[in-house]
Amino acid sequence: MPARVIKLTLEYDGTNYAGWQLQPDVATVQGVIEEALAKVLGTPTRLHCAGRTDAGVHAAGQVAHFATDHTIPAAAVARALNALLPDDIHILAAEEAPPDFHARYAAAARTYRYRITYVDSVFTRRHAYYVPRPLDVAAMREAAAHLIGEHDFAAFGNASEDYTSTVRRLEELRVDETLDGVELYFTASAFLYKMVRNVVAVLVKVGAGEIPPTLIGELLATRARRALGPPDGDAVWPPAPPHGLTLLRVRYGN
Amino acid sequence: MPARVIKLTLEYDGTNYAGWQLQPDVATVQGVIEEALAKVLGTPTRLHCAGRTDAGVHAAGQVAHFATDHTIPAAAVARALNALLPDDIHILAAEEAPPDFHARYAAAARTYRYRITYVDSVFTRRHAYYVPRPLDVAAMREAAAHLIGEHDFAAFGNASEDYTSTVRRLEELRVDETLDGVELYFTASAFLYKMVRNVVAVLVKVGAGEIPPTLIGELLATRARRALGPPDGDAVWPPAPPHGLTLLRVRYGN
Repeated sequence: MPARVIKLTLEYDGTNYAGWQLQPDVATVQGVIEEALAKVLGTPTRLHCAGRTDAGVHAAGQVAHFATDHTIPAAAVARALNALLPDDIHILAAEEAPPDFHARYAAAARTYRYRITYVDSVFTRRHAYYVPRPLDVAAMREAAAHLIGEHDFAAFGNASEDYTSTVRRLEELRVDETLDGVELYFTASAFLYKMVRNVVAVLVKVGAGEIPPTLIGELLATRARRALGPPDGDAVWPPAPPHGLTLLRVRYGN
Repeated sequence: MPARVIKLTLEYDGTNYAGWQLQPDVATVQGVIEEALAKVLGTPTRLHCAGRTDAGVHAAGQVAHFATDHTIPAAAVARALNALLPDDIHILAAEEAPPDFHARYAAAARTYRYRITYVDSVFTRRHAYYVPRPLDVAAMREAAAHLIGEHDFAAFGNASEDYTSTVRRLEELRVDETLDGVELYFTASAFLYKMVRNVVAVLVKVGAGEIPPTLIGELLATRARRALGPPDGDAVWPPAPPHGLTLLRVRYGN
């Protein structure tokens, strides 16, 4: 077993990647960093991240780790990787971690931000979801309050995923008004697949006055993904688009 | 002569373009919009802009016009163009203009913003110049004061350009501190080629303590581009990089 574990904190613009996770024939964040890492360490080395982001999703504080026997100082790893990485991936910090550190399993909480803008602009199109009409933020906050705490979030998960449990504890769901839109902050120890974007999609419907804030509690109580759609239909509302979402930070310890 | 003149207000992210102006074999903003315009109007149509931005320079309020005999309503031109244009070019408004309107010759003033950031981040790399150490904004303001008003700006122009006069009147040169950097605002009826970026390059040297604020007045007085460089050398300091620069707005009338 390699002697050292190095923890990386990094940011990336997810626009040009098919998500974090390694896949054949497409550019992924993991793939690009592992390629650079192999050059730095002289040997193929596996990276493990805290939160596997989907295609188009960004990260401002992703955490990843790798194990190695190489003696290179941690700070030199960051410099060497940054010299090789493209402009849209950037290592913010590299540090020595305890040998049992695991970016994913040791993470105590993840915080995501979802950005909505009322202004269609080339300068925000890759990083915020454009909604043409101002939303009712008070109604969104009322709806959000139903989701905070420990709940079975099956209605906001992805029916095709096979989870041991769909119960999650949402520590924080903050709805902030900004100059030209809304920012939502989600913190939990773990999320169901696409849970943040499914919640945002429904909160936007509340903010637009299409459904009442109280419906959120009823949807949650159904514990069924297919409940999350137009009444009298089998279709479900699609998740909010990926480019509004950013993994902000990962917390370790408590 | 075509019967109508349509005025466009538009924004673009200049990252992927070799500037505004049409050139063979490379993507330019003018080239891409003229291609879309030819489809909308059914005939090749020339665009004229207020300020020809260089490669990598952005615009949040560029103005352009074209003349046409087509009867399409102006608002429909904007919609049709936006449906054809790539994500990084966006028509904000299209309106009927007087037949003698000319985006370039009728412009009374242009305002540019130059963004400097102290944070190297994938989210600002395309739109702000990264300077690793905080700048002395008070010194930059003192230096900037020497440039406001009417002066011969030959020292801040480009020696290879052939101007009738290198006298320009700088209405505004504001230096604002932001949360993580500096923003400079320049307003003038016209600028010399690369004048804004040459001024920024020197103001950054002032802010970094490399040259005193009073040197700006002396440099201006030389009226020679080659004066703008390290003492005892023939080299001149390069202009600040293009990606920090944005054409913010164009004023017509007075």
